[in-house]
Amino acid sequence: MNTPNASPLNVDALFIGPKSENRVFFKEMMEYAVSEHLHWRADFHPEDPALVTPVEQHAGDFRQTLYRTEGILRQLSSKLKNTSVPWFSPRYLGHMNADTLMVSNLAYVMTMMYNPNNCAHEASPTTTELEVEAGLDLCRMFGYDPKRSWGHITSGGTVANYEGMWVARNLKTIPLAIAQHEKARDLVAGKSEKELLNLSPSAVLDLTDELKKRGLFEEVRALSCRGVGIKQGSLGKILVPQSKHYSWMKAMDVLGIGQEHIVPLPVDENYRTDVAKMREITFRLIKEGHPILAMVSVVGTTEEGSIDHVDEVIKLRAECERKYGASFYVHVDAAYGGYVRAMFLDEDNRFMDYDALLARYRAEDIIPAGVTWPKHDVYEGFKAMAEADSITVDPHKVGYIQYAAGAVCMKDKRIVDLISYHAAYVFEEVDEAEGADTKVVLGSSIMEGSKAGATAAAVWAAHRLVPLNIGGYGKVIGRGIVTADWFAQRLASAKPLTVGRRRFEVRPIMHPDFHMVNFTFKEIGNDSLEDHNRLNKKMYEICSYASGRTYTNDFLTSSTSLSVEEYGDTPWHYVASRGFSRAEWDKVESVYILRAAVMTHFLRKAEDFDAYWEQLREVFAAKLAHIVDMEDKTGADTLIAA
Amino acid sequence: MNTPNASPLNVDALFIGPKSENRVFFKEMMEYAVSEHLHWRADFHPEDPALVTPVEQHAGDFRQTLYRTEGILRQLSSKLKNTSVPWFSPRYLGHMNADTLMVSNLAYVMTMMYNPNNCAHEASPTTTELEVEAGLDLCRMFGYDPKRSWGHITSGGTVANYEGMWVARNLKTIPLAIAQHEKARDLVAGKSEKELLNLSPSAVLDLTDELKKRGLFEEVRALSCRGVGIKQGSLGKILVPQSKHYSWMKAMDVLGIGQEHIVPLPVDENYRTDVAKMREITFRLIKEGHPILAMVSVVGTTEEGSIDHVDEVIKLRAECERKYGASFYVHVDAAYGGYVRAMFLDEDNRFMDYDALLARYRAEDIIPAGVTWPKHDVYEGFKAMAEADSITVDPHKVGYIQYAAGAVCMKDKRIVDLISYHAAYVFEEVDEAEGADTKVVLGSSIMEGSKAGATAAAVWAAHRLVPLNIGGYGKVIGRGIVTADWFAQRLASAKPLTVGRRRFEVRPIMHPDFHMVNFTFKEIGNDSLEDHNRLNKKMYEICSYASGRTYTNDFLTSSTSLSVEEYGDTPWHYVASRGFSRAEWDKVESVYILRAAVMTHFLRKAEDFDAYWEQLREVFAAKLAHIVDMEDKTGADTLIAA
Repeated sequence: MNTPNASPLNVDALFIGPKSENRVFFKEMMEYAVSEHLHWRADFHPEDPALVTPVEQHAGDFRQTLYRTEGILRQLSSKLKNTSVPWFSPRYLGHMNADTLMVSNLAYVMTMMYNPNNCAHEASPTTTELEVEAGLDLCRMFGYDPKRSWGHITSGGTVANYEGMWVARNLKTIPLAIAQHEKARDLVAGKSEKELLNLSPSAVLDLTDELKKRGLFEEVRALSCRGVGIKQGSLGKILVPQSKHYSWMKAMDVLGIGQEHIVPLPVDENYRTDVAKMREITFRLIKEGHPILAMVSVVGTTEEGSIDHVDEVIKLRAECERKYGASFYVHVDAAYGGYVRAMFLDEDNRFMDYDALLARYRAEDIIPAGVTWPKHDVYEGFKAMAEADSITVDPHKVGYIQYAAGAVCMKDKRIVDLISYHAAYVFEEVDEAEGADTKVVLGSSIMEGSKAGATAAAVWAAHRLVPLNIGGYGKVIGRGIVTADWFAQRLASAKPLTVGRRRFEVRPIMHPDFHMVNFTFKEIGNDSLEDHNRLNKKMYEICSYASGRTYTNDFLTSSTSLSVEEYGDTPWHYVASRGFSRAEWDKVESVYILRAAVMTHFLRKAEDFDAYWEQLREVFAAKLAHIVDMEDKTGADTLIAA
Repeated sequence: MNTPNASPLNVDALFIGPKSENRVFFKEMMEYAVSEHLHWRADFHPEDPALVTPVEQHAGDFRQTLYRTEGILRQLSSKLKNTSVPWFSPRYLGHMNADTLMVSNLAYVMTMMYNPNNCAHEASPTTTELEVEAGLDLCRMFGYDPKRSWGHITSGGTVANYEGMWVARNLKTIPLAIAQHEKARDLVAGKSEKELLNLSPSAVLDLTDELKKRGLFEEVRALSCRGVGIKQGSLGKILVPQSKHYSWMKAMDVLGIGQEHIVPLPVDENYRTDVAKMREITFRLIKEGHPILAMVSVVGTTEEGSIDHVDEVIKLRAECERKYGASFYVHVDAAYGGYVRAMFLDEDNRFMDYDALLARYRAEDIIPAGVTWPKHDVYEGFKAMAEADSITVDPHKVGYIQYAAGAVCMKDKRIVDLISYHAAYVFEEVDEAEGADTKVVLGSSIMEGSKAGATAAAVWAAHRLVPLNIGGYGKVIGRGIVTADWFAQRLASAKPLTVGRRRFEVRPIMHPDFHMVNFTFKEIGNDSLEDHNRLNKKMYEICSYASGRTYTNDFLTSSTSLSVEEYGDTPWHYVASRGFSRAEWDKVESVYILRAAVMTHFLRKAEDFDAYWEQLREVFAAKLAHIVDMEDKTGADTLIAA
């Protein structure tokens, strides 16, 4: 669909900009979008009379209604301007938020006025096709074969994770359902229940092909958990890293599997799944006779931005199949980090060799000298995503698209038949010759129903303008990665900040896997972990909406706690490095940290970043002074020092 | 929040209009929305330097990137204009689509640029509050006590239905979980398992209060199906009318309950749940020892727009509690018809007496003489919604808000604790004194996660401008109801349409409960039901996107099939009235119908409607002539006559 690009993409031309630098263009295109639609309406059957006349439009109650409309919009504008968070500014380094692509905002507005509903092709003749195309874009980015895979937009990563587990769950119960059907059970003759619960996803899908040939697919599907409900505890365990998003706990509840069937996998000091422990736990479960329903890898943990060793999961599955005849489903939760895979792809969607990749980064100044990215582990993790059965990815995170746009991709689209439905009023008979793929009735093949076609247009337009490879999203995302690296480096070597006689040191938790930098402040000489946590919590409060209007703040960030309850002993690595005693850690069992997803594109010039860093140091010093000042006023007990 | 309204709402001033009549105002407000945001950005720390300079903006690759952006938007515009469906025109009478409120479109655009995420209050300080407010607006409309109830926005009715069944499912397993906990089981001492599965929703919620007092709530909750998974077949039956949306089958799959636990309730000749049969089935299930998990009522069936006897469901529950000690959860799927409840409410949110209501309709010309609305049954059905445990409603249907905006309301907000979650990075400690209600972290209390704050703003703004009572939405929705009534009346008495020597009659299936009119064409003298169905299917094809570009069509509608498989013998009433033999019905077992949700506001003047109807008759005649012509050319076998 893309016309060949004569000149490279200019990242600065993609966003409105922190000073609304591109306001003229944005307004011009907004006017275009609106006018196009208004004229389209008026031009539909020009012979039809206007049903509202100018005379009526000048009546008192008509004008009053317009004025009231304006009044409500003014009220909304004042609310938004008062308390919204300035994501667009480099002063904001917190959640996965930044400026969003102009083209996706404009495409949304343009499409919204036509109001398509992507539930059914009939209600969205244009945008269902755009959604299918955008879904395949994502499949290609993940290394899936676009002829055999399938992807679509969800309202967010949470629903995408549900859908991944939904197909995995239904898939797991198909072999047992086959064994129960008298005309099908020969397909699994001689297999024990244990063996049936340990078939590989592709083996189960091959069985469904056979069922379809025999005309038994629907009958057998009705005998799977979809039809008869879940048999408590029968489906096996779901292995999810401790660093998981809380949507995984929700998923186990929603899907009726039960949260106790999650087996948390410990993470290593980089907050990635600990490979040795993952292997140990997996082998133990198999030996104990537990089937494994699914293994979840996280590409971009919510709290640390860490990239799991997806390659090790894929290797482990092969090993389990070979050694024990035990297979399982692999889902990658790349809600946060999925789009980063574009950093590794050349213009032909080939995952580049490591050395060629680095050479290209240098040649095009995507990753400059002095910045080491990607780590080998991270490279291998992204590469192996192509082998996962399904992947969650959020266009509204590192796709730089406005909310709400999540997505899920499935490696083998046959799996969709395990969850698909049809209803008379949405189901259209599809003429295969006309291209069945794009006339799909999405609502009957996905978890959700009605959905805005405008979202599909926004994602589609972004993908057309910014290709999902090194020359497109690679350039956009690369900027944040470089800035994050610089930020982490500065934090790691920053001189102490002085407030009166007191001195404070700031340090990053670890070197980021892509662009999330976590860090804490510590008063030099105060080795109380509780005081440390209180200081950082206070710092968060005065650098966030928690202390009032963000618009008047100098710096904004987010925060989280890393506790023993959720992470075991992993945070101890950092706590120890900051000079706290083991006794402190064992007492407090939690470290409060500041959390910055460095997504801004606007600090990519070294001189801009240097100026920014100098200013930031001053801001940090002023914030610390403010905290010390409050502490002095209110008494030492309530703030930093206990 | 509303300022007192000096003058009444003018419905024509709420929409862009089929001829873009309000284009000047819409463009002005759009310009206002965009400018407000652009200046807000620029005014944030005016001392910060622009990071993109005019010199850079005039570089070749910068301009090229802008031109490419424009090119993609032009491409999108051409796609949208080519194949979108003109919902805004009275020529479109099909799905639940019409022109949408200007204020909600403008509020969406205004808010989208700030890009709030209503998953967490931190990411949406403004719009989480707007969502809570909009949710309570809906609760009030349904007669719920706003202090005890809770409502929120979902991506659509499908997810809202899931959420209603999710809470019902978890609730059902709490009493058994209590019985399993040694420190709690005294609360249910002496109760058999059967009794525990038949407790009323409010009795279970009272038990959870006691658990919270004892500090055992979380432990017991972990013993409910949320923690341990579903025990196959243990939860009882879900009674859903045959007229159900297919999302109910999806819900049973997603939630792990199993589709076979749905008990379909037959519908009467008005396509409402058949009360006598509902009672009979319910009593039989109770006598057979099956617990009932939930009873679902539909307010606005997808295919017929029928309003279930919610009052009879509420009465039945009370009767079952009294006679058999058996209670169940009641959910109302009012995705389609929910907003119609505004038709019954005065400005103080009181559900008006029937006679006073009719008097007011006449006095304000909301329902003119000659139109009978509401039927008594419909009135009682809407009234009883206040007694349901939860309600699904779609702002993107009869709320006249653009996609995607569904919602779910819960009568007793204590129920949310049965599904709520917290995660470190979204959970904020809430200061009760500052108003805990609006600082809620939505993502931890609902099914979905990330969600556009812009949707909340769109719904909130609509509710501020158009109050959820007779003077607001009542006026908007009333227009469609009146037009639908006129349309049904004309169809019922329409003279035959003549094509050469052949004569065709058009008739409505039934008188609408609110604004959906289903109808079919029949050739006079041809009593083959297959031919009838073929004729109407052909009519649909040439009056929809199925035959190509809708923009060049004269009339657009939707269609569906009413079959024995889904509706039992109900469609026979209409089939018989059209003169088909019982043998025909028993052979074909399905009737193909045209389906028109009459949502347009623009035909409310009798003279406009008359002119429209005359034109429509000509269109119908021309369409029939076209079909006859095709038939003549291609041979009788393929089209109307077999």
